[in-house]
Amino acid sequence: MRTDLVAALDIGGTKIAGGLVDGRGLILERAQRATPARHDGETVMRAVEEVLADLAASSVWGNVRSVGIGSAGPVDAVAGTVSPVNVPGWRDFPLVERVRAATGGLPVELIGDGVAITAAEHWQGAARGHDNALCMVVSTGVGGGLVLDGRLHPGPTGNAGHIGHISVDLDGDPCPCGSRGCVERIASGPNIARRALDEGWVPGPDGDTSAAAVAAAARSGDPVATASFERAARALAAGIAATATLVEIDIAVIGGGVGNAGDVLFTPLRKALTDYATLSFVRRLTVVPAQMGTDAGLVGAAAATLLRGAARL
Amino acid sequence: MRTDLVAALDIGGTKIAGGLVDGRGLILERAQRATPARHDGETVMRAVEEVLADLAASSVWGNVRSVGIGSAGPVDAVAGTVSPVNVPGWRDFPLVERVRAATGGLPVELIGDGVAITAAEHWQGAARGHDNALCMVVSTGVGGGLVLDGRLHPGPTGNAGHIGHISVDLDGDPCPCGSRGCVERIASGPNIARRALDEGWVPGPDGDTSAAAVAAAARSGDPVATASFERAARALAAGIAATATLVEIDIAVIGGGVGNAGDVLFTPLRKALTDYATLSFVRRLTVVPAQMGTDAGLVGAAAATLLRGAARL
Repeated sequence: MRTDLVAALDIGGTKIAGGLVDGRGLILERAQRATPARHDGETVMRAVEEVLADLAASSVWGNVRSVGIGSAGPVDAVAGTVSPVNVPGWRDFPLVERVRAATGGLPVELIGDGVAITAAEHWQGAARGHDNALCMVVSTGVGGGLVLDGRLHPGPTGNAGHIGHISVDLDGDPCPCGSRGCVERIASGPNIARRALDEGWVPGPDGDTSAAAVAAAARSGDPVATASFERAARALAAGIAATATLVEIDIAVIGGGVGNAGDVLFTPLRKALTDYATLSFVRRLTVVPAQMGTDAGLVGAAAATLLRGAARL
Repeated sequence: MRTDLVAALDIGGTKIAGGLVDGRGLILERAQRATPARHDGETVMRAVEEVLADLAASSVWGNVRSVGIGSAGPVDAVAGTVSPVNVPGWRDFPLVERVRAATGGLPVELIGDGVAITAAEHWQGAARGHDNALCMVVSTGVGGGLVLDGRLHPGPTGNAGHIGHISVDLDGDPCPCGSRGCVERIASGPNIARRALDEGWVPGPDGDTSAAAVAAAARSGDPVATASFERAARALAAGIAATATLVEIDIAVIGGGVGNAGDVLFTPLRKALTDYATLSFVRRLTVVPAQMGTDAGLVGAAAATLLRGAARL
């Protein structure tokens, strides 16, 4: 029986999650810290080291053969560094080297967080059995990853599938990334909420102005809330259609907080896809909700590492 | 000495070109017919058969081991059929089966024309040595193809890299493909000319209203002609940046009539790329002119076939 384990890290702007993951994708141990995102780089690294120390205290740590990291991006898998937009203390931060040092020299694999969730959805989730897939997280930001020809496609630096920052509106609003009209600038949760408020949506008595509150209002028939989700759906549809037209995916999987909005998102999204995915070879494209939930990042970081390890044998 | 040859076909809306290509990419024999694009499918097929018959009359035909076809798209490499937008008589036309029959049962490989020129530029042209590249033709239409991880990426149906029909302006003008704001709708030669005329550009005494004439006017300092090329450049930049952000290419190669316009296109294109290719992992992206000229389609159809053959050994 195989007992080799991967120590997986899922590093985002809000939390740093860790887990010991076995070859079937089961998470045997967990650890977590809040990301001290506004602090200096060493403070953030200390939180990572604490997560690893918690995991190392496990009785099965001795079976860990490698470390898999899925990190908020951009990452640089060649240099082993990360520069997460939401963690300003880390710019070209040598995360791979530091994690290797913190784990007594274990091999470390680094991919972007969008690539990690894609690995998870392809391994055990909604993209299972699909040789060409786009998996996305639509949440505070919009990220993604690709499966091409049956294999994860992280790209040379581990960032491929970064659909949140392709422009679908070349004259559109400036995006914090420096471009204009990016998918994320139109379809992320904060932008769905901002647009609804700008257009006159009035939040409920609880004052909740989150995208989830906009989704609830849309479900109740509020036209402004509905229109904001429809606009997000159009941007997502244009981006997904562009991806399908460029690399011939046949399924797009959407997770994250906005992805969990259900029909409020998926109904207009499927309709808009018929407007933008028009060529014969992309018309069969389907869009489905993600299945892996909040563990996708951890399981995916492990999956990418296991698969890479297998490829090396 | 290797004498195996590929019979290559480059099928477009204007002409059907054929060639016998050796393992170094040299074209030993040539044949060509105008495409009877407005006629029924059998008439178009007869022109293909005439090209093949011309090639079969060559003394070296006996060395032909396979046929490679690069066709205007969409194609369906799985079904072996083609449905070129500009050849209405061919819809799901069984080109592979018909060419196999016309050549006594030779193995036939089918790819889209954008994929074919990509194979050529990667084998012997401007993308040589690049493991991740986008190659484009910007002409009457806008097509393209991808090299990923060092290999041609035709996609399951042979259409990947179809950059002309990704939307970079989701509220933009309707495109004949059914979508809106496609790269082709903004950046193709006819659209560059149309936009210049719409904005008040006055052609010269020869009455030439082609994109080449607009390019000449732009070179002479005409502001409306210049603006039309700048608009095309922005659309191309947004599309190229999207491709790089999705699959991490490091070079984009541009050929075709508009691609040959030189600095009138490339200067604003390189400038616009800095506006849209903003993430760290796409900032090194370069854009260069194609090198393979009008033989790219033939050489590329042969290359894809030779490479596929090699992969099968």
